Amino acid sequence: MSKGGSDLGGDQIEGRRAVLELLRAGTRRPRAVYLSSTVGRDEGIQEIVELAGGALRVVAPERVENIARSEVHQGVVAMAPPLRPVDIDDLLAVKRAFIVAIDGVTDPRNLGAILRSAETAGATGVVLPRHRSARVTPVVAKAAAGAIEYLPIALVGGIPAAIERASRSGCWSVGLDEAGDRSLFDLDLADQPIVLVLGSEGKGLARLTRDRCDVLVRIPMHGHLASLNVSAAATLACHEVARRRNG
Amino acid sequence: MSKGGSDLGGDQIEGRRAVLELLRAGTRRPRAVYLSSTVGRDEGIQEIVELAGGALRVVAPERVENIARSEVHQGVVAMAPPLRPVDIDDLLAVKRAFIVAIDGVTDPRNLGAILRSAETAGATGVVLPRHRSARVTPVVAKAAAGAIEYLPIALVGGIPAAIERASRSGCWSVGLDEAGDRSLFDLDLADQPIVLVLGSEGKGLARLTRDRCDVLVRIPMHGHLASLNVSAAATLACHEVARRRNG
Repeated sequence: MSKGGSDLGGDQIEGRRAVLELLRAGTRRPRAVYLSSTVGRDEGIQEIVELAGGALRVVAPERVENIARSEVHQGVVAMAPPLRPVDIDDLLAVKRAFIVAIDGVTDPRNLGAILRSAETAGATGVVLPRHRSARVTPVVAKAAAGAIEYLPIALVGGIPAAIERASRSGCWSVGLDEAGDRSLFDLDLADQPIVLVLGSEGKGLARLTRDRCDVLVRIPMHGHLASLNVSAAATLACHEVARRRNG
Repeated sequence: MSKGGSDLGGDQIEGRRAVLELLRAGTRRPRAVYLSSTVGRDEGIQEIVELAGGALRVVAPERVENIARSEVHQGVVAMAPPLRPVDIDDLLAVKRAFIVAIDGVTDPRNLGAILRSAETAGATGVVLPRHRSARVTPVVAKAAAGAIEYLPIALVGGIPAAIERASRSGCWSVGLDEAGDRSLFDLDLADQPIVLVLGSEGKGLARLTRDRCDVLVRIPMHGHLASLNVSAAATLACHEVARRRNG
């Protein structure tokens, strides 16, 4: 992929909340917003209609159905310029960076949910591996509920190399690992520039990724089950960083 | 529904982790465990084979495909006695009860994810409204990853009445609400018997439910988006109670 290339996806946004945030953010002007004629005009839809302006196309529900690439469109689909990945060095240059590196999460709803949780926790950027991650499909964008409009995303060749680069910039890398020797809730470097590293569904962190992390933290489990879903774990970790930073 | 009736679902369990936990828990002996002949025999599958014993049926993949009611079966489907709801009074009788009341969550993956997070946080029970909730379908059970085998679930006519009953038993009710006047992280009664009350996707707590809660807490948001997904919010709230209780 060429630098600044567009294979991050995000060019088709489906679902009310995701489309509304696309329009609110205003950074990617959609060339068309398709709205099913049968959708009720509540407050959210009214705002979509106003913000879409000349790009609005009120069409028959079958038309939206045909255009949609997912089943989560809720009668609203927007065609937008694709997301443009940023350079990881730009993410690392942010003061008190709070970066979330997501290694090998392939389920689109999980990826979208992680992006939403990261954005609401004040993350300053996201790193995805070029070859081992879901792209921003309509299902990812829907689950992200607008987070992709605000969170800069970098695509990298591999997460271990990205961690090394972060380390050279003075950024701590904290891996989330079931076998971590420290509790997430004892993490005392959340105030520093930080990369939170998440592994894949089922398998967790790859060995090389785990070895490169400065600290491995686990989420304390209090029942019979041994682990949380990756997006639940990500939510806890992101908001623990936020809690520590914001008191 | 008659008391102790079985319309809670849970009679068909699909997916490796969910089936494995069903067998490990051993409280609901499955009458059949269908395993696709093409599934690789790794550690998890080997444990399923051993625990299933005489109930194991190794069959052609098409057979599993036909039996499965979801697309998440991963080649493993178990037929088990349905889950039996418990009485809410039994949940309230537990010492230092930690109950999660889920009002109107209809998305099966969200419901399952909430059950998994609740179980891993040490919740002692769950309350679902009889008429405004998803049942434990195969997709719910898969997302719950075994939590339904360990978490007692009560079905009630309505959440507001359940809150009142909890209150009479000396149990505090804490509602999760975007407009809550206190931060989740300032919740100082987590050590007491508690009912954590969660609203529906999109709409949040119903007015009557909100009015009955003793405390309303919000999750601090640090980005542009106004809210988290209901299962992400539930994860944070459940594990905050756990963190407070376990130090």
